[in-house]
Amino acid sequence: MNFLEERIIKDGIVKTGNVLKVDSFLNHQMDISLIEEIAREFKRRFANKTVTKVLTIEASGIGIAAFVAREFGVPMVFAKKSKSVNIDGDMFVAEVESFTHKNRNQVIVSKKFLHEGERVLIIDDFLANGCALQGLISIAESAGCVVEGCGIVIEKGFQYGGRAIRNLGYQIESLAIVDAMDAENGTITFREQ
Amino acid sequence: MNFLEERIIKDGIVKTGNVLKVDSFLNHQMDISLIEEIAREFKRRFANKTVTKVLTIEASGIGIAAFVAREFGVPMVFAKKSKSVNIDGDMFVAEVESFTHKNRNQVIVSKKFLHEGERVLIIDDFLANGCALQGLISIAESAGCVVEGCGIVIEKGFQYGGRAIRNLGYQIESLAIVDAMDAENGTITFREQ
Repeated sequence: MNFLEERIIKDGIVKTGNVLKVDSFLNHQMDISLIEEIAREFKRRFANKTVTKVLTIEASGIGIAAFVAREFGVPMVFAKKSKSVNIDGDMFVAEVESFTHKNRNQVIVSKKFLHEGERVLIIDDFLANGCALQGLISIAESAGCVVEGCGIVIEKGFQYGGRAIRNLGYQIESLAIVDAMDAENGTITFREQ
Repeated sequence: MNFLEERIIKDGIVKTGNVLKVDSFLNHQMDISLIEEIAREFKRRFANKTVTKVLTIEASGIGIAAFVAREFGVPMVFAKKSKSVNIDGDMFVAEVESFTHKNRNQVIVSKKFLHEGERVLIIDDFLANGCALQGLISIAESAGCVVEGCGIVIEKGFQYGGRAIRNLGYQIESLAIVDAMDAENGTITFREQ
C-alpha cells in the first residue's frame, strides 16, 4: 500500500451506497502535509510531460491542484460550477452531472485562461462516473489545449469513468483505486498498481 | 504600494457596479507564486498568534487558505456552501448572503473538525459586506473556538463589512483595502495602511 492507501485505511469511512468519506484529511478538512505528498507524487508520475497549466474544478480540487501547480511551477485554473456575475466575456462551457450532489451543473472556464497549444494537466480529488473529468477534458480540448494527463487522488474503480476515459487514450494516474468497499465491516479493497 | 496592490493595479480590471476582477491571478486562474507570497505575509501579520487551524469558505478561499495553513503547519478546514449528501452527522451552520451571486446559502462545517478551545485563523479572498466572514466567525464561535484573526486578500473599504467586524473587536488584516474604484478610467484608490 502507498501512503495514500494507508491513510484511507486509517481515516476513511465507508458508508452505505458506495460512499467513501475522506473529509477528515482531503475534502473538508485538509491535511496539508498529505496534500504536498500527493502533489509530489503527481509530479513524479507526470515527470516526462511538459505541463504549462494545471486545470481543476471547484471546490475540493482547488487545494490539491494548487500544490500540484506549485510542483510544476505553472499557474492553476479552476473551472467554476455556475455562471457568476463576476465572470463576463467568452467562456468555455461543459455540462456536468454530479454524483455527489445529484444535480447537473454548467462548468465554465474563461477563454482568457486556456489557450491553443497549452499543455494541461487535469487534477481532481475523485473519479467515479467520470462526468467532471470529461467536462474538464472537453473544455481543455475546446480551447485547443493538449491534455497531458489526468491526476486523480481517489478513483472508484467499480464505476465506469476511469475505464471509459482511459479507453479514449488519456493517461489517468489515480493514487488510490478502490475496487470494492463494504460498509458493513468497513473494508476497502484497493486495485494493485 | 505593497506587492499585492501593485499586482492589482497591473492586472485587476474595474467594472461598473464596483466590481473588481482579479480572476487572472486570484480567483479563477491562480498565480501560485503570488499566493505563496500572500500566505507568507499573513504569517508575518499574525506571527504573535497561536493558530491551530485555518478556516475558510469554498471555493476561492481554498487555495489561499491551504498555503496559509502550510505556513502555520496546521490543518485547513473549508466551510461548504450547501448540504452535500456526503456530509452527515452534526454540523455547525450559518446563513450567508453572497454579494457576488446575489443569493443566500447555508454555510456548514462538520462538528468533527472544529473543537472547543481551538485557535482559528479565518482566511478569505474578498471582504465586502462581510456576510461570509460573519458566517465563519459565527461557526467558529459556536464551536467554542477562539478567533485569532481574519486574513483577507482584498477588502472593499467602501462597503461596511470590515468596519462592522473590526468594531466587534476582531483583528482583520487585509493585504489591500480598496477605498474607491472608477470603472470609467480604470483607477483604483488604496487605503494607506
